[in-house]
Amino acid sequence: MNIALFGFGNVGRSFVKLLERQRAVYPFRVVAIHTAHHGTAYDLRGVSADTPFGPAAASAGEFLDKANAEVAVEITSLSPHDGEPAISHIREAFARGIHVITANKGPIAHAYRELRNEASFRQLLFRFESTVMDGTPVFNLVRHNLPGLTINGFSAVFNSTTQVILEKLREGLPLAEGVRAAQELGIAETDASFDTDGWDSAAKAAALANVLMDAGVTPLQVDRTGIGHLTPHALANLEGNTQRVALVARGWSTANGVQLSVKPELLHLDDPLARLQGTSNLLQIDTDCMGTLGILEFNPTVEQTAYGLFTDLVDIARSI
Amino acid sequence: MNIALFGFGNVGRSFVKLLERQRAVYPFRVVAIHTAHHGTAYDLRGVSADTPFGPAAASAGEFLDKANAEVAVEITSLSPHDGEPAISHIREAFARGIHVITANKGPIAHAYRELRNEASFRQLLFRFESTVMDGTPVFNLVRHNLPGLTINGFSAVFNSTTQVILEKLREGLPLAEGVRAAQELGIAETDASFDTDGWDSAAKAAALANVLMDAGVTPLQVDRTGIGHLTPHALANLEGNTQRVALVARGWSTANGVQLSVKPELLHLDDPLARLQGTSNLLQIDTDCMGTLGILEFNPTVEQTAYGLFTDLVDIARSI
Repeated sequence: MNIALFGFGNVGRSFVKLLERQRAVYPFRVVAIHTAHHGTAYDLRGVSADTPFGPAAASAGEFLDKANAEVAVEITSLSPHDGEPAISHIREAFARGIHVITANKGPIAHAYRELRNEASFRQLLFRFESTVMDGTPVFNLVRHNLPGLTINGFSAVFNSTTQVILEKLREGLPLAEGVRAAQELGIAETDASFDTDGWDSAAKAAALANVLMDAGVTPLQVDRTGIGHLTPHALANLEGNTQRVALVARGWSTANGVQLSVKPELLHLDDPLARLQGTSNLLQIDTDCMGTLGILEFNPTVEQTAYGLFTDLVDIARSI
Repeated sequence: MNIALFGFGNVGRSFVKLLERQRAVYPFRVVAIHTAHHGTAYDLRGVSADTPFGPAAASAGEFLDKANAEVAVEITSLSPHDGEPAISHIREAFARGIHVITANKGPIAHAYRELRNEASFRQLLFRFESTVMDGTPVFNLVRHNLPGLTINGFSAVFNSTTQVILEKLREGLPLAEGVRAAQELGIAETDASFDTDGWDSAAKAAALANVLMDAGVTPLQVDRTGIGHLTPHALANLEGNTQRVALVARGWSTANGVQLSVKPELLHLDDPLARLQGTSNLLQIDTDCMGTLGILEFNPTVEQTAYGLFTDLVDIARSI
């Protein structure tokens, strides 16, 4: 199966290496890469570390016309406010009969319903496992393993940067130190205010609500409070010995549609969301038939994100 | 799809009700029930609360010959020491070209490799999601969502009865009080020493190792210590303020095959295995491509077990 990549940062490099390791069993090949700043590369034998980048294709459409790919993978960096240019890239792929995988949560947070319907109308597959909690099965878990059940809500801590920042505040260090620590770990968004203001969590919450609860919302509709106002002193006063603050995302069904919130919450230490270590994430899904189900990811890296793209590829290969 | 049930206790009744609720979308029907003490029932239109039980079929084979089922579901109570009579029931079904689902962990803990090979040879499907952590996706999660990775080990707390007992010991009450509390919740095995001696956890650990790591072990090969020797005083001395005892099951790959242990371990409170509330369970899977992945189940009931059987049925319906 031939793959065209939009974007080629750390996740892209990790993804290409993973495909090489899996090639004996899974014959997937990246044949084209389009980047915003380093030009465009084509190699039908499969790109390698040596593949030269030429001038950038004039447009996403021109890139895809020349790429000869069956699946487009969107891993450009996120614009959390509108989901572009990723949404346009995906539409260009669908228009050419190409299946799409995105690790970019913008399209799922801002335009899931339209993109899903467009893929369905054209009998194409659209996958996005890595948009929430990297490669941890969330969307594919519900798709394949939880038939016949209704998801009534969810709660999650899934922004690693704010986890790192809160830990630094607990050590008495200012917020800027926490941001620096998260940047050194390579986990902060390019603009760390996307993390501290709760935009990253809001985009993930909107994505979950759109896919799992057919909410038709955008991150702008999330009741959102960040952690930018917290100080070491304020945090210590709030937490005491039996409670812990975390940036919690919640979604729940109401008679007026799905409601979403992202805000720092004071949780008892017995709450599983309260004691996540390091950059670990937890998502809890509330269902009718299965009660509440939790999925934990421990200290994720780009390798997990790349693995999520790979599992989506396998899912597409098994489905077509 | 027509279903024959071996066993009809709380899980069986919950399963029949769930199938009724799902019938508009999933046309599954229980057409025969065989029990050890209440006889055998057949009804090709689908058994209901009114279906009379007649005399017990002379054998599992005779029951299946008359049942007219495409899938046999094994939910008799467990003999943890040898996996019978469930293993024989499953072989009788395979011999007649019938797919099998078991919620009984005995067959997976004692004879998985043979049963898997027999099913594969006859091109039949064999599913067992509810054997570990009820309906929580574990085996189907790995089957459908984690392609191309190697599982190097796991750690888990998944015996609810010992969780309840340890909580009672913490309140200063004797072990027998904890057993009684677990029996009142309806979660203790018929003989509670299967829980307190670690047999239930050992059977689950062997099942996980057999399916996920191709270990070919039985529960007898698990290095097993129960919690029967613990007293309130001893527990308080061990735990202090920063640690907690839990009955932990572990499996890990070595050069000499998979090693398994079940024993009370003293865990730091920051360990996710240490702070499970009520009867909640946690399984952590260690992988090469995805790091460690955790799956949490909150306060399960028979409804979750029944849902696990249902998801296996859907999986079979989608696969045939």
